[in-house]
Amino acid sequence: MIKLVLLRHGESEWNLANKFTGWKDVDLTHTGQQQATSAGKLLQEAGFEFDLAFTSVLKRAIKTLNITLDVMDQLWLPVERSWRLNERHYGALQGLNKAETAAKYGDEQVHIWRRSYDTPPPHLEWDDERNIANDRRYAGLTREQIPLGECLKDTVERVLPYWHEHIVPQLKAKKKIIIAAHGNSLRSLVQYLDDVSAEAILKLNIPTGVPLVYELDDTLQPIKSYYLGDQQELAARMEAVANQGKA
Amino acid sequence: MIKLVLLRHGESEWNLANKFTGWKDVDLTHTGQQQATSAGKLLQEAGFEFDLAFTSVLKRAIKTLNITLDVMDQLWLPVERSWRLNERHYGALQGLNKAETAAKYGDEQVHIWRRSYDTPPPHLEWDDERNIANDRRYAGLTREQIPLGECLKDTVERVLPYWHEHIVPQLKAKKKIIIAAHGNSLRSLVQYLDDVSAEAILKLNIPTGVPLVYELDDTLQPIKSYYLGDQQELAARMEAVANQGKA
Repeated sequence: MIKLVLLRHGESEWNLANKFTGWKDVDLTHTGQQQATSAGKLLQEAGFEFDLAFTSVLKRAIKTLNITLDVMDQLWLPVERSWRLNERHYGALQGLNKAETAAKYGDEQVHIWRRSYDTPPPHLEWDDERNIANDRRYAGLTREQIPLGECLKDTVERVLPYWHEHIVPQLKAKKKIIIAAHGNSLRSLVQYLDDVSAEAILKLNIPTGVPLVYELDDTLQPIKSYYLGDQQELAARMEAVANQGKA
Repeated sequence: MIKLVLLRHGESEWNLANKFTGWKDVDLTHTGQQQATSAGKLLQEAGFEFDLAFTSVLKRAIKTLNITLDVMDQLWLPVERSWRLNERHYGALQGLNKAETAAKYGDEQVHIWRRSYDTPPPHLEWDDERNIANDRRYAGLTREQIPLGECLKDTVERVLPYWHEHIVPQLKAKKKIIIAAHGNSLRSLVQYLDDVSAEAILKLNIPTGVPLVYELDDTLQPIKSYYLGDQQELAARMEAVANQGKA
């Protein structure tokens, strides 16, 4: 049996400010750091010993991973970072307050932008200062790969090649893996692993900073999955994520 | 011209306690964290943009690197960790207080153990609880590679293969590199780069948490090297390192 842990980053400055974040590289809040510490304690208490870690190139995921591994005394593990594990790119919504956007466009429109599987948010103009094309960490991307605004379907399509090429071979080699990433890059993996419909995946709210454990068989089919930690607190956190986009 | 930065980890708990540390995986002190922050600021002010980072599998070096890169907003960089960049293994001296050891054996003997190029410290017994053979981070080492006590020559001999196989190809590909490591693994590199005699390298004291910049030509011969930061403070810090082993 192969165990895989998915970990959404702890609360970020823009989670707290209730802004659409996407590829904006915001830091963790103090609460977010504490969530990462808690995640590390839960994993340690459950006896997890990883061989390898994956994360995005955004500091809220990288720092969540670093704090978690430090608590577990496993900072020495190899870590692979990739833009493919980044959060969904929120296009022209990046930096806007979710509640203000909802007051302006209506809850329903914002809900569509946040939770539609295949309706992308309004795209960034190429010369928008929020375009990451000139950020040297993305120098390896082709012009076609540089996102200007993604629906979840777009995110799934750039996450899964990384899953198949980089993560699956390691899982098949029986490596114990933790992936520290983002709400929608993790949702992409959950959709694929659990074969969830486009409709149902939109209702799945992964809480920040809570380890999600998958037990997989030799063909990488899930046997079961569960969150570590207090299940009541967990329900409250999932509800909080679901309500963010309301005015 | 190729720039390479060497960075010795900030003050650790056992630097502070004046103990022989070696491969013991002690944490940074608060001062050590501040030194790493200062290193990051100096590198940022000097405009360094790295492509790749190397470090050991010991948390005092990894955390120094993480703090430094965070200050520089370059946490997204790929990082390679290797046991070959670990500190010199101090054998049976690991965990002993340097001043007490000097009081017991005399300054001269301790100076030989600390600074002899080819006289190793007393070796650990294989079944000593300080032997790292059962630590899973070293599971890839052969029994012959597991150190029980190293002189600087031994350290040089396991650092240089890593330099040639992992770091040199990246430098030749014009990658801008930072190596966050330890007093003696960095001394090994300095000896090689500057072609320093065994005698002279023992007198070189690399201060903690100060970026050491090498400018290399296309054949990786040093054009010059210098520390960033206040040169007077630097002299005081080198002196402090040199005096640690005295009763």
